[in-house]
Amino acid sequence: MAKINSNYQKLQAGYLFPEIGKRVRAFASENPTAKIIRLGIGDVVLPLPDPILDAMHKAVDEMGKVESFKGYGPEQGYDFLLQAIASHFKSQGAEVAPDEIFVSDGSKCDTANIQEIFDIDNVIAVTDPVYPVYVDTNVMAGRTGEAENGRYGKLVYMPTTSGNGFDPELPKGKVDLIYLCSPNNPTGAVMPRSSLEKWVAYAKANEAVILFDAAYEAFITEPGLLHSIYEIPGAREVAIEFRSLSKTAGFTGTRCAYTVVPKDIKARNAKGEEVSLHSLWNRRQTTKFNGVSYPIQKAAAAIFTPAGEKAVKANIAYYMENARIIREGLKGAGFTVYGGVNAPYIWLKVPGNLTSWDFFDKLLRESHVVGTPGSGFGTHGEGYFRLSAFGIRENVLEAVARIKSRLKP
Amino acid sequence: MAKINSNYQKLQAGYLFPEIGKRVRAFASENPTAKIIRLGIGDVVLPLPDPILDAMHKAVDEMGKVESFKGYGPEQGYDFLLQAIASHFKSQGAEVAPDEIFVSDGSKCDTANIQEIFDIDNVIAVTDPVYPVYVDTNVMAGRTGEAENGRYGKLVYMPTTSGNGFDPELPKGKVDLIYLCSPNNPTGAVMPRSSLEKWVAYAKANEAVILFDAAYEAFITEPGLLHSIYEIPGAREVAIEFRSLSKTAGFTGTRCAYTVVPKDIKARNAKGEEVSLHSLWNRRQTTKFNGVSYPIQKAAAAIFTPAGEKAVKANIAYYMENARIIREGLKGAGFTVYGGVNAPYIWLKVPGNLTSWDFFDKLLRESHVVGTPGSGFGTHGEGYFRLSAFGIRENVLEAVARIKSRLKP
Repeated sequence: MAKINSNYQKLQAGYLFPEIGKRVRAFASENPTAKIIRLGIGDVVLPLPDPILDAMHKAVDEMGKVESFKGYGPEQGYDFLLQAIASHFKSQGAEVAPDEIFVSDGSKCDTANIQEIFDIDNVIAVTDPVYPVYVDTNVMAGRTGEAENGRYGKLVYMPTTSGNGFDPELPKGKVDLIYLCSPNNPTGAVMPRSSLEKWVAYAKANEAVILFDAAYEAFITEPGLLHSIYEIPGAREVAIEFRSLSKTAGFTGTRCAYTVVPKDIKARNAKGEEVSLHSLWNRRQTTKFNGVSYPIQKAAAAIFTPAGEKAVKANIAYYMENARIIREGLKGAGFTVYGGVNAPYIWLKVPGNLTSWDFFDKLLRESHVVGTPGSGFGTHGEGYFRLSAFGIRENVLEAVARIKSRLKP
Repeated sequence: MAKINSNYQKLQAGYLFPEIGKRVRAFASENPTAKIIRLGIGDVVLPLPDPILDAMHKAVDEMGKVESFKGYGPEQGYDFLLQAIASHFKSQGAEVAPDEIFVSDGSKCDTANIQEIFDIDNVIAVTDPVYPVYVDTNVMAGRTGEAENGRYGKLVYMPTTSGNGFDPELPKGKVDLIYLCSPNNPTGAVMPRSSLEKWVAYAKANEAVILFDAAYEAFITEPGLLHSIYEIPGAREVAIEFRSLSKTAGFTGTRCAYTVVPKDIKARNAKGEEVSLHSLWNRRQTTKFNGVSYPIQKAAAAIFTPAGEKAVKANIAYYMENARIIREGLKGAGFTVYGGVNAPYIWLKVPGNLTSWDFFDKLLRESHVVGTPGSGFGTHGEGYFRLSAFGIRENVLEAVARIKSRLKP
């Protein structure tokens, strides 16, 4: 008799974004004339820039000729892309070798799959609020125990609230795997160098592994902030870094990301022997993945050319101007807002005694604006609300105007 | 202290194809003038046909305009593609609804990931020889126990050899999950209708789930053979079917596949209650995957248009003519050969007392032809050897001529 993985039944409700989608569809069908502005899911809206399109067209043409056709590529990614990414890290002050980079079709996949190479008994620490994928994939794997009041018994939650400046404190006990995300989704906060140094030191002292999600590093605008954890000496021995082209280069529908597993990083097997995580992840990827589509890898490589970089930076600047408009607009209207300076997310304090979902429904009903309820990211997200800067300028301006006129706190 | 998933250390040697790659690279560097012909890994060589290229170019253009730009798509695939695939099933006599189809970036991923939704204590049956991904992913998950003499203690192996016409017998005891692949990789055999009926009946009687890999269904040339397991009444209650565009449409470097999880199929949770596998797989995919690149999905949809279908069929006919040339050429030279009629693989009996890897090395050394050692697919693959029909005609002819002249059995 086939039995299911019962851990799936420990998952809390639906995954956040499908639930948002469901509520928005319901509202839209009841209010067919409402002009809904979506600042919820955090999806890019600007088209791909020409240097990227050109590269993709050329690659498609290559696929049409027998002499340039590409079949299976290396599971880890083509060398032309690995070299371009390694140079990009170097330009940011981080030493990463091309063969330490694994190209994939998305950071969601990578941050979801990375837990597979670790033992089921590792103690996992996550921030609260947190990107739900880190938690849900560990629930599915059976590392979390049952949920009670929205919290899993075996997870270590690290509150990141206005109380600690959205910079999580070190856990009191020992943990084995630590998910960190900076610039943070959803709070928009960036961990300062001193904080990252503290985490690297903790990981070294406790033989812990940091799973560092830097999907939004390209949105850092203030100087002096770190883009890669590998800018910290010693981080190569304790940290795996995830990066994405989804927001950086408008690739949410094009699909490409990359993960760095340094050859210096080890964890222990059941006998206590050190094992290379690089070789484990390589085995995982070669067994379960067949590489990213060739035209997509060519498009990705174009991002790292001077013309591609310039175009991508212009799009990021556009979104960060949106962030400024939302942040300052809401602040001017009396809301308490965080983030939006080095990240494309504005983290809003929900006014009054409303819950995050109450505010979601109210905002949708009264302003026809879609955001993301903070409680969807964890217990300490309750009372907060995420607005994304990924919108067409005109819509962002209108959304802010509507919120100001209809929803004063 | 972070601990690794020690199940990875139960894996036998490297994954088959990286090992082949290593040996070929070593040979090539020692013999730089040798013209190596690769009939090993089974990778397509013909360029993508025009209707597919045109669709991809158009989709790339759409990504360059704000009004047609696509960000995140549905994790399950765009409706235009799901509809096209559902119609294709219908034309083959199988009832599959669009929302039972999950588009992915590869069948390797899907057949690797499907085990995640099942309990760790399910008893797994695999054919021997077998596509290594089915086994290795269950090893990594901890379902197999330790290996001894190339076999894992907890797996049920079903020999498929010339002795049973490469048609596996039902297991004597009860098993929960059964991996079947027809047309078979590596043996090239197709399971007849009577055999599939027997398996569906077994699965129903034992509440087992059949994981049916139909990646090569498009290569069936003889009439009366089944392309989908859903042509069997009742299969919707017991089978998940995997299909790939990799070989069908030359997508090994373009990356697109799909998996059907019918809404009728259930398995039991720890309490013995029935749970929908469709909803579990949907949860898995929405949590860990973000859908296939939009231009790739547009290219995939073009395969199901009349022009696309015609072009793809012409390529398949080309490969199957290669298969005929290899099969008949080697047969004429005194080899015992199987397959190659309804599958792009020729399964060769290794002559003399050589092992499969001996023959691999000999063939490479003496004929500069790369094949795949049968033992790489399992204990009962020892003494066999796989040649793939995916080659340029001229190379296939030359490979056969070289083998005939230099390697008579």
